[in-house]
Amino acid sequence: MGILILLNGIFMFTCLPFSFYFGDGDWWALTEAGLITVLSGGLIVFYGERKGYKKEIKKKDGYIIVSLGWTVMAFFGSLPYLFSLENPSLTNAYFETISGYSTTGASILTDIESVGKGILFWRSLTQWIGGMGIIVLAVAVLPFLGIGGMQLFVAEAPGISPDKLQPRIKETAKRLWWVYAGLTAIETVLLMTGGMNFYDAINHALTTMATGGFSTYNDSAASMSPYIQYILIVFMILAGTNFTLNYFLFKRMFKAIWTNEEFRYYSGIILSSSIAIGIVVAYSSDLTIEKSFRDALFQVVSIITTTGYVSADYTAWAPFATMIIFILMFCGGMAGSTAGGVKIVRHIILFKNSFLELKRQLHPTAIIPVRFNKKAIKEGITFNVLAFIMAYLLIFGLGILVMSALGVDLMTSLGAVATSLGNIGPGIGTVGPVDNFAHLPDTAKWVLSFLMLLGRLELFTVMIIFTPYFWSRF
Amino acid sequence: MGILILLNGIFMFTCLPFSFYFGDGDWWALTEAGLITVLSGGLIVFYGERKGYKKEIKKKDGYIIVSLGWTVMAFFGSLPYLFSLENPSLTNAYFETISGYSTTGASILTDIESVGKGILFWRSLTQWIGGMGIIVLAVAVLPFLGIGGMQLFVAEAPGISPDKLQPRIKETAKRLWWVYAGLTAIETVLLMTGGMNFYDAINHALTTMATGGFSTYNDSAASMSPYIQYILIVFMILAGTNFTLNYFLFKRMFKAIWTNEEFRYYSGIILSSSIAIGIVVAYSSDLTIEKSFRDALFQVVSIITTTGYVSADYTAWAPFATMIIFILMFCGGMAGSTAGGVKIVRHIILFKNSFLELKRQLHPTAIIPVRFNKKAIKEGITFNVLAFIMAYLLIFGLGILVMSALGVDLMTSLGAVATSLGNIGPGIGTVGPVDNFAHLPDTAKWVLSFLMLLGRLELFTVMIIFTPYFWSRF
Repeated sequence: MGILILLNGIFMFTCLPFSFYFGDGDWWALTEAGLITVLSGGLIVFYGERKGYKKEIKKKDGYIIVSLGWTVMAFFGSLPYLFSLENPSLTNAYFETISGYSTTGASILTDIESVGKGILFWRSLTQWIGGMGIIVLAVAVLPFLGIGGMQLFVAEAPGISPDKLQPRIKETAKRLWWVYAGLTAIETVLLMTGGMNFYDAINHALTTMATGGFSTYNDSAASMSPYIQYILIVFMILAGTNFTLNYFLFKRMFKAIWTNEEFRYYSGIILSSSIAIGIVVAYSSDLTIEKSFRDALFQVVSIITTTGYVSADYTAWAPFATMIIFILMFCGGMAGSTAGGVKIVRHIILFKNSFLELKRQLHPTAIIPVRFNKKAIKEGITFNVLAFIMAYLLIFGLGILVMSALGVDLMTSLGAVATSLGNIGPGIGTVGPVDNFAHLPDTAKWVLSFLMLLGRLELFTVMIIFTPYFWSRF
Repeated sequence: MGILILLNGIFMFTCLPFSFYFGDGDWWALTEAGLITVLSGGLIVFYGERKGYKKEIKKKDGYIIVSLGWTVMAFFGSLPYLFSLENPSLTNAYFETISGYSTTGASILTDIESVGKGILFWRSLTQWIGGMGIIVLAVAVLPFLGIGGMQLFVAEAPGISPDKLQPRIKETAKRLWWVYAGLTAIETVLLMTGGMNFYDAINHALTTMATGGFSTYNDSAASMSPYIQYILIVFMILAGTNFTLNYFLFKRMFKAIWTNEEFRYYSGIILSSSIAIGIVVAYSSDLTIEKSFRDALFQVVSIITTTGYVSADYTAWAPFATMIIFILMFCGGMAGSTAGGVKIVRHIILFKNSFLELKRQLHPTAIIPVRFNKKAIKEGITFNVLAFIMAYLLIFGLGILVMSALGVDLMTSLGAVATSLGNIGPGIGTVGPVDNFAHLPDTAKWVLSFLMLLGRLELFTVMIIFTPYFWSRF
């Protein structure tokens, strides 16, 4: 954890060049925050080394490190905001930071463009760092902890033995990090070819690849050119794709991508939702056909990949189109990507299992397993996936109850909880795509912060710590 | 099915005395409808007997009989409306009838008090008949068909062997019908002691015990005296209780009732929700404490038992109170009662399983079953319950999508689908407690009618017919 904090502090210093270049006057705030963070991290490392703590990590330690690590890091990450913003409150700063690290993208900033460029870069960077963390989690930590169905997403290239492709988990993580960094670099360049300046391009690239959705513009992607919007669409789709498949893309192993069942459903849902919404928008507005379908595609991709950029206000669409967007908030991208939410693979298993249950009812003695990527899935995993989805909905229910208890209206409660738990960004009601979260009561912001963390860490990682089983010795 | 239709026709004639007594001029409509129904039913029986159809019913026949029976009966049941209402449309008449038979209570009547007393009695009677059907379904049919967890609700009295209590399914059904009819009679008398006339008393007794919720007043229970409201509350609670427990009540076997786990949760949810809402209402309005808590209790009981009477407009309460009501729409009463919805027992299993899944995660090799009423539940049943709840939510999702596609706004879509699928009655949005369903587009009414049927028949009974497995020979 010390090392994590240390690295975060170093990242803060990378914001300094932008602060100096644009002369926003925040260089001291960033330096202060960076120094405190680096020193704190260093102290923990130094103290830990001297005490000679065991380096072997057990399963139970894993849950604590992941949950506590994310929580503590967000406190240090909020220092730049606390030292620089005009009206700094710990609640707002922490909300913005956890929204960053969890790659959610919900914001309390009412006027983004008035914030210093150095701080805004830190804001985008928190999402990119979060995205890196999620890749490690997905590849190494969550399968080790046995979190619902995460064992399933590991895509295998046909004809290549899994061992060959993934010699060691550490290697895999590094390779996927390169893919992540590489795609970020390529996107930056492509955005610049569309006329964006380097600063805005790198900021948007960082937050696209993390499926975060923080923008440097007040109106998010609404005023961008069609070319740039299409680039964002493509890279949002890539960021919501299992990074092993993105690695296959670099290696030109197209067949391995297309035969992946989750990827087929992912593309299918994006296509069908966009077409349905596109038709509705084209009919019910005086926009051109191209603009209607681009708006539909952009919003669908932004929500399903849990990025959260906005190029059109989906709450102003016909109810049917808004409803599709709301339902997509419970969908999520592919497992093994930086996207949040329930994830497509779990929905596939859920749908297949519900359908097969009808078959089981007719043939009570037959054993009928769910199949995914042409392989039968162990009953325990199917069970775990169902339990995960149920837990997701229970927490959603509790969340909207708590939000409404804080005086938030029904629509906003539904939207804010769905978007926080799914790590998306914009919701419905008064936290819709053209609004922000600033007006919510402080307690609501803390609740939503917790929900973002919970959603990001696949629920069980955090929940398990609060059970008596975790603390009993057996 | 012929016999069912025949009996329904006979029931229509029981409305005639009321029609004559109040001189509403609908006697000919009722007679016409009764004759057509009795003749049709008689013809089917006669034709079936002559053809000598096999009397042995197989499992697959069961699904068809139940699903088709309910659908066809509703067509005959809508005849009295078609022959008597000023603006008869098949859509409206069918909606009202299926809302009756499914004991939902959603209505398209804008001015209930202007409708003839004979027809209104038929309206209440459809719910009572529906309730009888549901008791048979719960005791005999659904366990035989193997529908999700319905095997679990059979409450056993400690010390009495199940065989002794239930010599035969037919006997059990008959005994529970007596309990059902007995409670209806007692409620009628009690309502009359509160100053209600015989006609209104019997109508409300019929629709309480069926957890239906059709009232003979435009403002439902809002203008009733506190005494009468409390009587309705008590009988709604009884109607939402497993009828085997109500039988125990007659037999004064109180311990068997209180040791029933589902009953404890049922009481617990009612109490805690009512107290929470009561506090909110008492604080945020200038009503007396007693009136606040009575309103809270009445609405909570009405929604959780899926009855649907209204004594106060819950959509006008503070968001927190309305949200609790909305969430309770997904709760439902006890299995084995006339209540609709998901049912408490399924929620218990769901919650326990989600919690135990966290334990399983820490101890992956241990076998940890869910326990209900102190007995371990077979994994297959837990699985089926989870699949049921998932199917419920999938259909809810599809439902709100279809409703919004028909141009209905988001809130109303959420409310109308939740209340129809749960067989409750009032929703939120423009189908709230002080509104009705008349203004919805025709297609929406048909969709909701189908959802009422689907919810009433525990989803799987109907869904299974639409799978290829059902129609394949293996």
